Amino acid sequence: MAAFRSTAPHIREGIDRLAKTAVHVGLNVRHGQQVIVTAPLDAVELVRRIAEHAYAAGASLVTTLYGDDDATLARYRHAPEDTFDTAATWLADGMAQGFRDGAARLAVTGGNPSLLKGQNPERVSRASRAASIANRPALEIITSFAVNWNIVAAATPAWAAEVFPGEPEDVAVTKLWEAIFAASRVNGADPVAEWAAHNEQLHRRAADLNARRFAALHFKGPGTDLTLGLADGHLWVGGSSEAKNGIVCNPNIPTEEVFTTPHAQRAEGRVRSTKPLSYQGTLIENIEVVFKDGRIVEAHATQGEDVLRRVLDTDEGARRLGEVALVPHSSPISRSGLLFRNTLFDENASSHIALGQAYSECMTEDGGRSPEDLARRGANSSLIHIDWMIGSAETDVTGVGADGGETPLMRGGEWVEAV
Amino acid sequence: MAAFRSTAPHIREGIDRLAKTAVHVGLNVRHGQQVIVTAPLDAVELVRRIAEHAYAAGASLVTTLYGDDDATLARYRHAPEDTFDTAATWLADGMAQGFRDGAARLAVTGGNPSLLKGQNPERVSRASRAASIANRPALEIITSFAVNWNIVAAATPAWAAEVFPGEPEDVAVTKLWEAIFAASRVNGADPVAEWAAHNEQLHRRAADLNARRFAALHFKGPGTDLTLGLADGHLWVGGSSEAKNGIVCNPNIPTEEVFTTPHAQRAEGRVRSTKPLSYQGTLIENIEVVFKDGRIVEAHATQGEDVLRRVLDTDEGARRLGEVALVPHSSPISRSGLLFRNTLFDENASSHIALGQAYSECMTEDGGRSPEDLARRGANSSLIHIDWMIGSAETDVTGVGADGGETPLMRGGEWVEAV
Ligand SMILES: [Zn+2]
Ligand SMILES: [Zn+2]
Ligand SMILES: [Zn+2]
Ligand SMILES: [Zn+2]
Repeated sequence: MAAFRSTAPHIREGIDRLAKTAVHVGLNVRHGQQVIVTAPLDAVELVRRIAEHAYAAGASLVTTLYGDDDATLARYRHAPEDTFDTAATWLADGMAQGFRDGAARLAVTGGNPSLLKGQNPERVSRASRAASIANRPALEIITSFAVNWNIVAAATPAWAAEVFPGEPEDVAVTKLWEAIFAASRVNGADPVAEWAAHNEQLHRRAADLNARRFAALHFKGPGTDLTLGLADGHLWVGGSSEAKNGIVCNPNIPTEEVFTTPHAQRAEGRVRSTKPLSYQGTLIENIEVVFKDGRIVEAHATQGEDVLRRVLDTDEGARRLGEVALVPHSSPISRSGLLFRNTLFDENASSHIALGQAYSECMTEDGGRSPEDLARRGANSSLIHIDWMIGSAETDVTGVGADGGETPLMRGGEWVEAV
Repeated sequence: MAAFRSTAPHIREGIDRLAKTAVHVGLNVRHGQQVIVTAPLDAVELVRRIAEHAYAAGASLVTTLYGDDDATLARYRHAPEDTFDTAATWLADGMAQGFRDGAARLAVTGGNPSLLKGQNPERVSRASRAASIANRPALEIITSFAVNWNIVAAATPAWAAEVFPGEPEDVAVTKLWEAIFAASRVNGADPVAEWAAHNEQLHRRAADLNARRFAALHFKGPGTDLTLGLADGHLWVGGSSEAKNGIVCNPNIPTEEVFTTPHAQRAEGRVRSTKPLSYQGTLIENIEVVFKDGRIVEAHATQGEDVLRRVLDTDEGARRLGEVALVPHSSPISRSGLLFRNTLFDENASSHIALGQAYSECMTEDGGRSPEDLARRGANSSLIHIDWMIGSAETDVTGVGADGGETPLMRGGEWVEAV
C-alpha cells in the first residue's frame, strides 16, 4: 500500500497543505468541536495530518471511521445471499447523533472507483439501498447544512491505477497526488488566502445569477436538448457558505461550481452525459435519458445500464433532479485533461445535474423550508443524490426568464459574461 | 508499518488460523448476525481474515472501527487543554444500539502498551474517564453477556518492540505473532477441536469449585496476605459459555482462567502485584494495596502511582473488587516466560483480581440479577474493570468454607488437585 511507504518530500508537504486547507477552509473547525472523519484505509497519511491540524485548530476529538475496500469485497465473495439488505444502521444513527450534538463532518474520498465492477448488480443495489436508508438521517443533517462539512480527496493506489493506467503504482500515486493538489488549489504558499479569493469569485457569480431570477435553463449540445425549470425561490450557491451552526465552510474541495435547485416537475427533453459516472464502485458510461414533466421516462447507458436502472428505481425522487450546476469548461480540473472517475473532481470539470435529493440551502428561506414547503416549491427529495456530467466545450446554456426572454449564459462551455 | 509488509508464509497461515478461531470459537457467529470489530490500524491483516471467515460463517455485515495510536498522540500534542473531557458518546451509543440489535462484538487488542507514557496524567485520566462514561451502556451489554463477544490479539510493531526490546522491527513482530499463536492455541492442525478440549478442562475446574461453595479465598505470597470474601451465590466460570442471545462463545482468546465474583465489602489484608499492569498506555508497576471492608484504603506503585490513584478515584466501585481469577503458574503463557504488557495475555499467566465492575454471569440466577439484587449479594459496580496480576510460583491459595474450614487449592502457584 503506497500510502504507507516513505513518500517524496513535495508530496508529504502537499498532503500537509491539503490537510490544513481541509481543516481551515473546508471545515473551519470551531474550538471545542468534535470532528467525524470517514476515509479509506489508504488515506491514513492525510487523515493523520488532518487530525493534527484539527486539534491545533481547537477540535475536542477527531474520530476517524476507516473503510476498507478489501473487507467490502470479502462480503461479496463470502457472505450469504440473504444478508445483502443489511446496513450498519447503528453506526449511521450514531453519526447522526454526533452531528446533532454539534460535530463537524469530514469525508475523505479516494476509494477504488471500480471496486464493485463485476459483482452481481442485484447484490450491489440491495446493499447500496440498505446503506442509503440507514444513512438517511445523517444525510438529511448534511443536506440541510445543519453543521459545517467538507469532502476532500486522498490519492490511493487503486484510484491512481484507474486515472493513470499503465504507470507503476508509486508513479501513479504521486501523479494523482499532484493532480489533487493542483485541483484543490493548495500548491501556492498560502492556500487559505487563495481560497478566499476563489470563494469571492464564486460568490459574485452566484449573486449575478440570483439577481436575474431565471424561470428555467436551456442546455443544448450533442445529444442534449433539455429545458430545466428552476424551483420557485431557488437560490444559486457557490464556494463557501454558512452552515446553520453559524460556521462558514467550504463543503467541497475542490469546488468550481455554482449550483441551484431545479423544479422536480419541470424538466423536458433529452440529455447525454459527457463524462463517465463512478457510482459506488461501478462506472456508468454514456448515459442518455429523456425527461417528461421532470421525470426520467427513458434511460440508457453503454456501460452500467443495469446499475443505472436500479438507481432510478430507488424511489420516486431518484427519477427526478435535485441539483443543476454550472462549471466553465476552462476550469482548472477540466484543463488538466484528466478523467478522475471520482465525482468530486469530474463534477467540477463540467456543468452537471444530480438525480435525487435537493439541497435546502439552494432555496430561499422566505418561501419556507419545511419538507412540505420545499416539495410544494419544487425541491426534490430522495434517498440518493448522484451528480452526473452534462457539460463540454460544445455545451450552450441559456437562461429563460418568467416572460420567456432568453439570456445566453454559456457558449461553447464558457461563461458569456465575466463577473 | 510491518503489518502491511509481505509477511512470512507461516505467519500468514497463523493469522488465518487465528482469524478462523476468533470467528468460530471466539464469537461463534450466527447466520445473519452483524459483527462489530474494533482494532488498531496495524491489525488490518488479521481483521481482513476475520471479515472473510465471518462472512463465510454467515455474518450479514462486518464493520471495523479502527483506532490509530498516532491520532491519539496528536490529540495530546495539539488539542486545547479544556477539551480533554470529551468522548465520542455518539459512537459508543451507536455501538450499544448495534449490540441491542443483535450484533456480535470482536475486539482486536495490540496497541502500544506505553502509548501515553510521559503524557500529562491529569489529561490521560480526564480523557479516560470521559471515555468510560461514554462506553458505559455498551460495556454493560458486554458485562451482562447479552451478546456473544470475543477479544483476540494482533502483533503490531509498537507492541512487539516492548515485548522484544532490542530486536529489529520485523523480527520482533514475527516473534510476537508466534507467541500469540502459541498462547492462543492455534498452532495445531485443528484449533477448533483443540479449543473444545481446552474448554472442557476449564468447565470441569469451574464445576469443581462451584460444588465446594467456598465463602472466601485466602491468598498468601511475598507481600500478599489477603482474604477475599466471595459474593453470595457467586458462580465460577471458565472457558466457553452461553451468552443471553443463546450463542456459546469464548470471550477471551487466549483464556486460562476460572473466575468468579468477590464480595465488594469483604476483602481484608494486603496484596502485591506480580506483573506490571498496562493501563490505557501507561505501565503501572509493583502495585501494593491494603483492603479494609472490601475497600482499598492504601495504594502504592513504584511506577504509574499517579495514574493508579486517579483510576481508584474514578468512582466508589473503582476501589473495590469485581473479579477474582485462578490461573496455574504452569499455564502456557506463563511458561513462555514473556511479559506481554497486555492484560489479555498477562492475566492468563497468573491468578489475578480486578478492580471495578463485576460480571453478572459470575452470579447464580436464583438470587436475582437486577442491579439491586446484584449489589445486595455483593457484586461490585463501577465504570472500570481492570485486571491485575497477583499470582506467581510463590502463591498459595486456600478455599475457606462458611464454617471456617480450609481447603488448599493452589500451592506454589499450582493446583493441588487435578480435575
Ligand atoms: Zn454539484
Ligand atoms: Zn451534487
Ligand atoms: Zn480475569
Ligand atoms: Zn477481568
